[in-house]
Amino acid sequence: MELLKERIRKDGKVKEGNVLKVDSFLNHQMDVKLFIEFGKEFKKRFADCDINKILTIEASGIGVACIVAQYFDVPVVFAKKNQTKNIAGDTYTSRVESFTHGKVYDILVSKEYLRPEDKVLLIDDFLANGAALLGLSKLVKDSGATLVGAGIVIEKGFQDGGKIVRESGVRVESLAIVDAMDEKTGTVVFRE
Amino acid sequence: MELLKERIRKDGKVKEGNVLKVDSFLNHQMDVKLFIEFGKEFKKRFADCDINKILTIEASGIGVACIVAQYFDVPVVFAKKNQTKNIAGDTYTSRVESFTHGKVYDILVSKEYLRPEDKVLLIDDFLANGAALLGLSKLVKDSGATLVGAGIVIEKGFQDGGKIVRESGVRVESLAIVDAMDEKTGTVVFRE
Repeated sequence: MELLKERIRKDGKVKEGNVLKVDSFLNHQMDVKLFIEFGKEFKKRFADCDINKILTIEASGIGVACIVAQYFDVPVVFAKKNQTKNIAGDTYTSRVESFTHGKVYDILVSKEYLRPEDKVLLIDDFLANGAALLGLSKLVKDSGATLVGAGIVIEKGFQDGGKIVRESGVRVESLAIVDAMDEKTGTVVFRE
Repeated sequence: MELLKERIRKDGKVKEGNVLKVDSFLNHQMDVKLFIEFGKEFKKRFADCDINKILTIEASGIGVACIVAQYFDVPVVFAKKNQTKNIAGDTYTSRVESFTHGKVYDILVSKEYLRPEDKVLLIDDFLANGAALLGLSKLVKDSGATLVGAGIVIEKGFQDGGKIVRESGVRVESLAIVDAMDEKTGTVVFRE
């Protein structure tokens, strides 16, 4: 998606440790107008699919997922990272190792909101080592629902996640795939 | 907002400890179509206001904030609950005691995304003891930005938060104010 690549080139910052900082428009401050374009693009790419629910993970996936959901006319469910008093009863859970936060945590979804008859599209802002996406896939699988695919805003193509998730049989559509970054020059190379 | 009250009557569940469980449409599964109506209503209530940014707090505020932001044509910034590797440099911080999670945490916003010239509308899904809203207000105050008001989906009118925040001089608009709940009968009484 050319609009997104241009925005990453303009506002993204390459930091030490393969970090692409895009918090001016994607995951701290959120450019909702840009998210609307993501919604249209994902709708185009998954136009042939029967989807009745979007699943994402807190926190930064939620904004994109809600805007995108308008184009599919479906509700969003977000997987929670910590057990809270307000989630009672049965949940599907999965263990995730976060690259960003450098820690391991459980994600969970109430069984009420993932049903065997659901046709689920995963939405997330980043795909790097694939841990979050594999965790979400497991929740869908455990529920007996159908996993239609995954829509990712930025994929780090130089990490293994995309390959692993695709090889597991999940259709992944990424709006921008970064194949290389250089923190010294600030250069970002996108896959064609 | 009658549509919201009807939905709370229909799908809300009153649980022990003054918990109103609305996770089938508000804060776990999210009914984006309903959120669109929230957006229209907040735009109506704050129609007279000059707003260039919406500030919310992760996680469940983000979905509502992003949908609402479309009606104000402004970006959303969400306060983060934990320091992550990806937020470098200076932040505004505030300490919050969560009713839901029963713990104390810091919230933070990068100084880049709250500027003295900003005119900020706070959006959150719940107002109970007011801790989150007061924490967000402090971030805005510390930044020197103008706090235009706060838009809340559900206010628990039988807790002190609404009173405290309003008495601190913040304009609070809540789409539904719950004045009483009964876990035995499941009854919810709304303020007129």
